[in-house]
Amino acid sequence: MKAIKNNTYLRALQKKTVDYTPVWMMRQAGRYLPEYRQVRAQAGDFLTLCKTPELACEVTLQPLRRFDLDAAILFSDILTIPDAMGLGLHFVEGEGPQFEKAITSLQQIEQLPVPDPHSELRYVVDAVTQVKNNLDTVPLIGFSGSPWTLACYMVEGSSSKLYRKIKQFIYNQPEAAHLLLSKLAEAVTLYLSAQVEAGVDAVQIFDTWGGILTTTAYQEFSLNYMQQIVQALQARYPEIPIILFTKQGGQWLELIAETGCTAIGLDWTIDIGVARSRVGQQVSLQGNLDPMILYADPNAIKTQVDKILSSYGAGSGHVFNLGHGIDQHTPIEHVQSFIESVHTVSKKYHR
Amino acid sequence: MKAIKNNTYLRALQKKTVDYTPVWMMRQAGRYLPEYRQVRAQAGDFLTLCKTPELACEVTLQPLRRFDLDAAILFSDILTIPDAMGLGLHFVEGEGPQFEKAITSLQQIEQLPVPDPHSELRYVVDAVTQVKNNLDTVPLIGFSGSPWTLACYMVEGSSSKLYRKIKQFIYNQPEAAHLLLSKLAEAVTLYLSAQVEAGVDAVQIFDTWGGILTTTAYQEFSLNYMQQIVQALQARYPEIPIILFTKQGGQWLELIAETGCTAIGLDWTIDIGVARSRVGQQVSLQGNLDPMILYADPNAIKTQVDKILSSYGAGSGHVFNLGHGIDQHTPIEHVQSFIESVHTVSKKYHR
Repeated sequence: MKAIKNNTYLRALQKKTVDYTPVWMMRQAGRYLPEYRQVRAQAGDFLTLCKTPELACEVTLQPLRRFDLDAAILFSDILTIPDAMGLGLHFVEGEGPQFEKAITSLQQIEQLPVPDPHSELRYVVDAVTQVKNNLDTVPLIGFSGSPWTLACYMVEGSSSKLYRKIKQFIYNQPEAAHLLLSKLAEAVTLYLSAQVEAGVDAVQIFDTWGGILTTTAYQEFSLNYMQQIVQALQARYPEIPIILFTKQGGQWLELIAETGCTAIGLDWTIDIGVARSRVGQQVSLQGNLDPMILYADPNAIKTQVDKILSSYGAGSGHVFNLGHGIDQHTPIEHVQSFIESVHTVSKKYHR
Repeated sequence: MKAIKNNTYLRALQKKTVDYTPVWMMRQAGRYLPEYRQVRAQAGDFLTLCKTPELACEVTLQPLRRFDLDAAILFSDILTIPDAMGLGLHFVEGEGPQFEKAITSLQQIEQLPVPDPHSELRYVVDAVTQVKNNLDTVPLIGFSGSPWTLACYMVEGSSSKLYRKIKQFIYNQPEAAHLLLSKLAEAVTLYLSAQVEAGVDAVQIFDTWGGILTTTAYQEFSLNYMQQIVQALQARYPEIPIILFTKQGGQWLELIAETGCTAIGLDWTIDIGVARSRVGQQVSLQGNLDPMILYADPNAIKTQVDKILSSYGAGSGHVFNLGHGIDQHTPIEHVQSFIESVHTVSKKYHR
């Protein structure tokens, strides 16, 4: 494995001194890039792209050729685990992910296998290996969906607006829900462990749907299982940073920090200075520009970047990012000027 | 005007002693009721229902005949003001509200009229009068959308998932955005004043989309204008309680309380006990059962009701409600048992 030339990203996560604030973007390998759309067309469909290590490697590296990003993130889908459990993931154009077999009974949950990452999910591990063989400039981030977020899709059968089925499920059959979530926590732990052993330098858990819950249900059904994963990974790989990102989790930062994670990913609704004052002693922070601001003029983007940098203030412990994935129609020249703004403006906070 | 027999709702808002915690439900006059669907079918379309005072009065009163609710809320739509400004509101089945003319330029904003509630919005005032003539059991709540929420629909032209247009607008043309929001704040003030003069006993401002903003943008573009309305109404009608409801506003309770509003409406994600400890000295609280919990079994509903009541704790200042509008497929017998649970279980917190 090659040495990493620019480890600003890892240093910021560890709160070591840096010359500038490092930056990457959630969904940076994606549809807003014409070269991505070309590979996607070549693959035929999204899932084939995910499952072909050469292509997944190629699109992972694409944004790094265009932009001065401080980290790469593995290109994959958050629903690889339920797919490997046999639920039959497929994508309907314009409608997002769907499962052929949604979870409707305890019996189904009892029979769900915990996938072996070196077998059913081998394509992900192979993609990590290939990226690491071709990347020596910046660290590589591995990731997984959180158990709760995976369970939402598995029970709903698709994305949802109201999440009525999964909520009925946790309130009417909490034991069955906990069995499902336990299996998923075990599967995510194995999956992220395999990514670490294949070479990723940090891991992020995406809890896209934790924010739809009440505070107590969030603790019981989402955070509890992320904590189990954090503890298991830290016992095995104490040097690997773990970032937890719960969208709409701003109310729960203290609870999230208590898991022992390295960093918390913030959506754009929370002021990062407020977040730092609440949990900055315990964790690093990642975030948090509203991805819609990338549609504004470059001057407006720069103003908002500076607002976040100045709210965080001087010192390390901040990785700049968007508060959610970059949107598919974002102008590329705006992305360019966003990344330059972060690098240029942030220097004054690291003297 | 007749005297109100049961003023538990108003007493709770004023933190006066009550025998039990009063309850009403956002969107309680609506599609989950078969008698509503019948009147709606009779009206032909949704907007005709809103604009026909006899029918609006009838559906306002319907839930009170079925359930032991402690308040009525005027049946209307939150987009009546932009419609009265000439934007051409209409509803497409299954797609929600749409405007014929969305706002795209400063010139359009400069030419927008501030509607006279006694002329273009006369049908709302007449509905209030009719309800008050037919309701002597509980108080009537009037309402409006917040300036920010109205602006979102006016600029997007419809509901939206990402709110890209309105965000581009506020970041690229903040002065134009402020002109629009100022006009809307004036219009909402006149509209709610007319409702008060026609007899409503309290008013609620629905800020459905404040939660999509950053903290500073929320203050500048949403809260600032709600505060102007609160101050104007309180100067004219100091005895009328004002409830502010920002969905996903749990992070901003202190800021919302500083407007001087009487009560804050809470969505379900925040723990009401935490909310009380943060702002309970300044305001009353309304909320906050996840409306999806009404799909769970009655026993589970009762458990969750008790959790909220016990988290709020002893004493007045709590109006029970859902954290968002009741969903259209909610079983009526679950609603019945929800309301009974609130009334029965809450007595022990008011001894």
